[in-house]
Amino acid sequence: MRALYINSGTASLRNLPRPRRPAGWARIQVLASGICNTDLELLRGYYGFRGVPGHEFVGRVLETDAGDDRWSGKRVTGEINLTCRGLGYIRLCDLCARGLASHCRRRKVLGIVNHPGAHAEEITLPVCNLHAVPARISDHAAVFAEPLAAACQVLKQVRFAPRDRVLVLGDGKLGLLLAQVLHRELRKTARTVLLAGHHREKLALARRWGVDTRLSGARLGRREWDVVIEATGSPTGLAEALERVRPRGTVVMKSTIHGMLQAATAPWIVDEITLVGSRCGPMDQALRLLARGVEVESLIEDVLPLARALQALRQAARRGSRKILLALDA
Amino acid sequence: MRALYINSGTASLRNLPRPRRPAGWARIQVLASGICNTDLELLRGYYGFRGVPGHEFVGRVLETDAGDDRWSGKRVTGEINLTCRGLGYIRLCDLCARGLASHCRRRKVLGIVNHPGAHAEEITLPVCNLHAVPARISDHAAVFAEPLAAACQVLKQVRFAPRDRVLVLGDGKLGLLLAQVLHRELRKTARTVLLAGHHREKLALARRWGVDTRLSGARLGRREWDVVIEATGSPTGLAEALERVRPRGTVVMKSTIHGMLQAATAPWIVDEITLVGSRCGPMDQALRLLARGVEVESLIEDVLPLARALQALRQAARRGSRKILLALDA
Repeated sequence: MRALYINSGTASLRNLPRPRRPAGWARIQVLASGICNTDLELLRGYYGFRGVPGHEFVGRVLETDAGDDRWSGKRVTGEINLTCRGLGYIRLCDLCARGLASHCRRRKVLGIVNHPGAHAEEITLPVCNLHAVPARISDHAAVFAEPLAAACQVLKQVRFAPRDRVLVLGDGKLGLLLAQVLHRELRKTARTVLLAGHHREKLALARRWGVDTRLSGARLGRREWDVVIEATGSPTGLAEALERVRPRGTVVMKSTIHGMLQAATAPWIVDEITLVGSRCGPMDQALRLLARGVEVESLIEDVLPLARALQALRQAARRGSRKILLALDA
Repeated sequence: MRALYINSGTASLRNLPRPRRPAGWARIQVLASGICNTDLELLRGYYGFRGVPGHEFVGRVLETDAGDDRWSGKRVTGEINLTCRGLGYIRLCDLCARGLASHCRRRKVLGIVNHPGAHAEEITLPVCNLHAVPARISDHAAVFAEPLAAACQVLKQVRFAPRDRVLVLGDGKLGLLLAQVLHRELRKTARTVLLAGHHREKLALARRWGVDTRLSGARLGRREWDVVIEATGSPTGLAEALERVRPRGTVVMKSTIHGMLQAATAPWIVDEITLVGSRCGPMDQALRLLARGVEVESLIEDVLPLARALQALRQAARRGSRKILLALDA
C-alpha cells in the first residue's frame, strides 16, 4: 500500500506491505487524515521518529476477528493511545490499573510512538480503540475528532467557576477549536471567553462562531484572567500566559514546545498559580460535539490525495496555514 | 527602639523611632520572632529590600484605638499580608473584592514589602490582621504559626485522594513542618507520606513524629508519586519533583527560588502534570494545630536576644541549621 514515510527528517511516499492485523484488532481503510503540527515536528526530527505519521483520521473497518461483525464496514475514528488493554496484556501496568490508561507505561501512539499512522491507505488498531462515527458527521469533519477531543480535555481538567474570564492564547488550529468549544460550553456561565491571536482572518473566523477576539499585542491586561489556555505553539507563550493570569488563577499548557523553557518560577509561587499540562482528550465527547454542529470544516484549507502528501506537508508548514487533509475522495 | 535593619545587603542593629500606630491598628510588643530563609534572601539583596525584616512573631498588644479594648494585653500573632481592608481602603481592589485578599493589589507584607517587620522591639499591624494565641501555646511555639500556616495551605490547595502516595522533598524547616502536618492530617487516608532529605538528624526528628523518611539520592522511583511537595529550597528541586511525580499527578511548589528555571516543558504536558504554586496559608488552622500538639519546639536550634540578631542571622545561614529565634526572654 502507499504511505507517507518519515526517516531521519526526510519524508517520502513509499510502497509498504499492508499492515498485519493481530487478533482483537481491526484493519481499517483510511478515508481521510489530517496533518497536525506534531507530524511536522516528527519531520523536524523530534523523537527520532522513523515510520508512517498520522493520528487524526476517519476510516472504514475492513476486517476484524472472524465471528466479530460488530464493526465490519463501520465508519470509525480511534483513540490514538494503544494501552495495556488494547495491546493484549492481561496484567495491566500500574497506570492502566488506576484508570490512567492514556498514560499507560507500555503506551504506543498511532503515528507517533511505535505504531504506523494514518497517512497511509490502511492502518490497524485494537477494536477497543474504535469509535463509530455518526452518519451526520462528514468524513472531513470526523478527522477533527482527535484535536477536538484534545480541546475538550480542558473542560475535564479545569473547574471553571461562574463569571470566569477565560483567555485562549493562539489562533492556530488548536486555539481555534479551544475557543469554539469553550465558548459553546461556558457561554452560560463564563463572563468572557476571548481568543487572542496574530491572524486577522482566523480571528474573523472565530468571531463568526460568536467568540470574542483580540489581536495579540493589544492590551490584554496583566494578572487579570481567571484561566489562560496557552496554545500559541511558541516558546514564549507560557511566559505570556503567566503574565496574563490573575493570582491563584490557572494556566493550561497545550503547546508541547521542544527545547528549554527559561523562566523565573518565584512569581508563579508568590501568585499561587496552578499550571496544568493537557494532552489527549475524550473522543466520545468530541464526536457528540461534532454531531451537535461544532463547526470545523471552515478550518480546512485544502484537501489533497495521499499521492500529493509531500505537497500537503509543505503547505501545512507554512506560517498561518489552516488544516490540510489527505483524503481518498480528493 | 532597637531593631534589626537591612540596607543594601548589610544588616545592622539600629535605634529607630517607635512605630506610629494608625487608627484601627495595634501597636505590639514583640515577645519572640523567628528567622526565616526569606530574611536571609532579603539580606542577600533580593527585592532591593531596605528596612526591618521579620514576619514570624508572637507579641503582646500594647495599644489599640481608644474605646476598643478587645485586644489590649492579649498575646497575638498576625497575618503578614496587609490588604485593602487593613490598609483602610473603603473601595477594595478587584482581588480583595473576589476573596483573594492575600494577593491584594495594594499588598504590603510585614517585614518583606513596605512594612517594618518583627525583628524589633515593637511592630504595628491592623487589628483585623491579629490572631489571639491560646494560652497552651508557648511563645516559642507560637512563632511557628506563620510557617505552619504555609504548610497548611497545601491541604487547602490539593485535593488528596484516598491511598495517595505523598512525597515531601526537602528536610529544611518548611519541609519538616509539611511532613508533620501532612502525616497528621492524611494518616487515615493516604497510603504513604514520605519525607526525603539530606540530613540524617532531621530525618530522625521526623521519624519521631511518625513520618516515613528516606535519604535523598536513595531510590525514590520515577513517575510514581501522586503528589510531590517541592520544599528543597534548591534550584534543582522542581526538576526532581517532576521526575518523581506520576502522570496526571500534582507537584506543589513551595520553594521561592530566585533566578531562572531551565526546564523542558514538553514532558509536563505529555504527562499532564499539575503544578501548584503555594505561599501563605490559614493562620487559624495553624494555631489550632499548635494547640492540639503539633510539635515544633524540637525544630528550634537556638534562642537569642534581639541584641545578638547579627549572630542569629549568621547562625541561621549555616547549611542545615534549624530555626533560630530572637526572644525577649533569651
